[in-house]
Amino acid sequence: MTDLSRDIERLARRSREASRTMGELGSRAKDAWLEAAAGRLEAHKAEILEANRVDLAEARARGLAEPLLRRLDLGGKWHDMLAGLRQVAALPDPVGEITRMQVRPNGLRVGRMRIPLGVVGIIYESRPNVTVDAAALCLKAGNAVILRGGSEAFNTNGALAEALRAAARESAVPEDAIALVPTVDRAAVDALLKLHRYIDLLIPRGGPGLIRKVSEESTIPVIKHDAGVCHVYLDASAEPEMARAIVRDSKIRQMAVCNGLETLLVHRDAARSLLPDVLKALHEEGVEIRGCERTREVFTEAREASEQDWREEYLGPILAVRVVGGLDEAIAHIREYGSNHTEVIVTGDYRNAQAFVRRLESCVVGVNCSTAFSDGYRLGLGAEIGVSTSRLHWYGPMGLEGLTTQKFVLYGDGQLRE
Amino acid sequence: MTDLSRDIERLARRSREASRTMGELGSRAKDAWLEAAAGRLEAHKAEILEANRVDLAEARARGLAEPLLRRLDLGGKWHDMLAGLRQVAALPDPVGEITRMQVRPNGLRVGRMRIPLGVVGIIYESRPNVTVDAAALCLKAGNAVILRGGSEAFNTNGALAEALRAAARESAVPEDAIALVPTVDRAAVDALLKLHRYIDLLIPRGGPGLIRKVSEESTIPVIKHDAGVCHVYLDASAEPEMARAIVRDSKIRQMAVCNGLETLLVHRDAARSLLPDVLKALHEEGVEIRGCERTREVFTEAREASEQDWREEYLGPILAVRVVGGLDEAIAHIREYGSNHTEVIVTGDYRNAQAFVRRLESCVVGVNCSTAFSDGYRLGLGAEIGVSTSRLHWYGPMGLEGLTTQKFVLYGDGQLRE
Repeated sequence: MTDLSRDIERLARRSREASRTMGELGSRAKDAWLEAAAGRLEAHKAEILEANRVDLAEARARGLAEPLLRRLDLGGKWHDMLAGLRQVAALPDPVGEITRMQVRPNGLRVGRMRIPLGVVGIIYESRPNVTVDAAALCLKAGNAVILRGGSEAFNTNGALAEALRAAARESAVPEDAIALVPTVDRAAVDALLKLHRYIDLLIPRGGPGLIRKVSEESTIPVIKHDAGVCHVYLDASAEPEMARAIVRDSKIRQMAVCNGLETLLVHRDAARSLLPDVLKALHEEGVEIRGCERTREVFTEAREASEQDWREEYLGPILAVRVVGGLDEAIAHIREYGSNHTEVIVTGDYRNAQAFVRRLESCVVGVNCSTAFSDGYRLGLGAEIGVSTSRLHWYGPMGLEGLTTQKFVLYGDGQLRE
Repeated sequence: MTDLSRDIERLARRSREASRTMGELGSRAKDAWLEAAAGRLEAHKAEILEANRVDLAEARARGLAEPLLRRLDLGGKWHDMLAGLRQVAALPDPVGEITRMQVRPNGLRVGRMRIPLGVVGIIYESRPNVTVDAAALCLKAGNAVILRGGSEAFNTNGALAEALRAAARESAVPEDAIALVPTVDRAAVDALLKLHRYIDLLIPRGGPGLIRKVSEESTIPVIKHDAGVCHVYLDASAEPEMARAIVRDSKIRQMAVCNGLETLLVHRDAARSLLPDVLKALHEEGVEIRGCERTREVFTEAREASEQDWREEYLGPILAVRVVGGLDEAIAHIREYGSNHTEVIVTGDYRNAQAFVRRLESCVVGVNCSTAFSDGYRLGLGAEIGVSTSRLHWYGPMGLEGLTTQKFVLYGDGQLRE
């Protein structure tokens, strides 16, 4: 065992201890910390933004690409980040809720009580605002959090975490409930991945390389936020104006997000009547159309789609389009090429709507609405720590409840089995 | 890639395809398969028990220990195994249930629909009845199952699985929804552990070695059924007769089960008044008492407990006993030495009861009842596929609901984000 892995283990052990205190805190104490954190961040805004400037300058000198620099830049996100803390404070506390209390025939009362997961590890890249967002959600749900940000945001993350810990010192939240891995050494991640004794859940937030590494090497349960290859299927009975508007909103509103539309499927009976209008509007707004043969017959500006296009998460101004024989073929396409993220049918047909919703296994399945609703806030979760595309524990956009579990509680008056 | 790992991958791919058909089946089709399976097993009882005799003879020749031989012997479990199938058929189908449907301010209806996990892998040792019990629960919840039994039960498991598949051929359930790994080669398990593309959940059921191997090497989510170091804490206000009965039922009713009592904790103010009677009864029934110093002062037949005794899952006629200063010390002991399984307080004090239930993080926490209620049937789940002692996905005794997940379903009439 190296000195580093010993240090990381010590850090995680302190997190475990802090998580026990966290689990016993009431909402008022946790909300007081959230308020104090907002205050501390505001008070140290100048230092934090200065640390961010240092990170940005280094990143620019190292030739980091423009989109990554934008993610790293905290300035424009400051207001949202602080507002987020106060929003989380206003959310109902999930901890302690008892559901489905029932009385067994012998009089034993059995229910399930919601409790924190314990210690949550977040491994993320670039965006330093995750330090604050993730800590707020994890602690509000009664957990301790271990944060491991990207090396390019090292100074910013350090300044942010220090403000969060300073807020803890002013409140009943233990300081060790917020831990930041204090090194850019990648061996620290390797050490973290093995600490299942002290860490209950890992959430990697970053590119496919990071997600693969964490899920393959970790002995701790992982919630993956994989690619979003989202589909809209225009059924033969789709109302043309609704079809046009939903496709446009799903594709154009924001392109670089995981719930954006990537592949449009169209019933062959509607290809001629629906597609030209729908695609013309997108094309005029600068979206490149890559279509199957049938698509190119009705919309000649389309380029030829390759097999690879069906699997692509473009995150940009390209749309793949395929004409299918009907609902079964649309479902088969989504199962073969999709990523279990978000799928929408536009239809006027009751049976097709129900079959689409019932049969597809993706984490968000909708009828006659934009894919852009696949988002924790829009679905009423109050906040979002990520979108789980694996089915265990939580499936889909995940908020506070996904950061908790349920234990069984039994209230008896002397019941025996014998 | 070896021929074997290619074969295992092919098997798992067929399971994934079968899982899609399973997910679309209604309750009636699944229940018809359960009934047909019971009929097929009854029709082939003689062959199956003959296969079991072959396994037993080989195991005896290889010198397998008596408890393992008892687990391997299917004869005495035949009736319960068949009754189990019909009980599972009678349980409500969890698939398709929509919970918490809400209308968002824009009129979008958002709910969560319960769906199967997909493909569940069960890796188990010795007990061949698991083949039937696990397949029944997995398929009732709409999943496909991949079964990997112990090498010593190879012939029995083969005969059982063939009956289950034959029942599928008579019903709408696809035959590949029940797959048995067709070799005793251990490399088959290594291959299974890597197939996260096709398998959604692994449940290892066996000794600590198996559980460690599966959770360390698997890239698939694992639900662990770890040791049960269960505690009863007798508070100062415990009613003596209730204390005696609960301790006895928790320890004596069945010793070799994970919800059996292993360590008894007693408030120091009650040590003298409660312990002698409680321990005398157990001691007379053949239970060895290993106590701390204070315990041995009030019950001289107790042997001296070592530090290791506090961590031990005896699964037999030994009980560790410790006198503690009060509730805080009891909770600290359970956190330090327990295994997050089942803990019970016996008390007449309202605040202590609530604090014990609220503060302990174990998966089952009870007041004034036997630890033996920590069981899927007794808690009203209808059935049990195991007891999860890790907090992700499911915590505690796990039935049909634990074999499902929830997706988001959205019903709109043209809602856009913009």
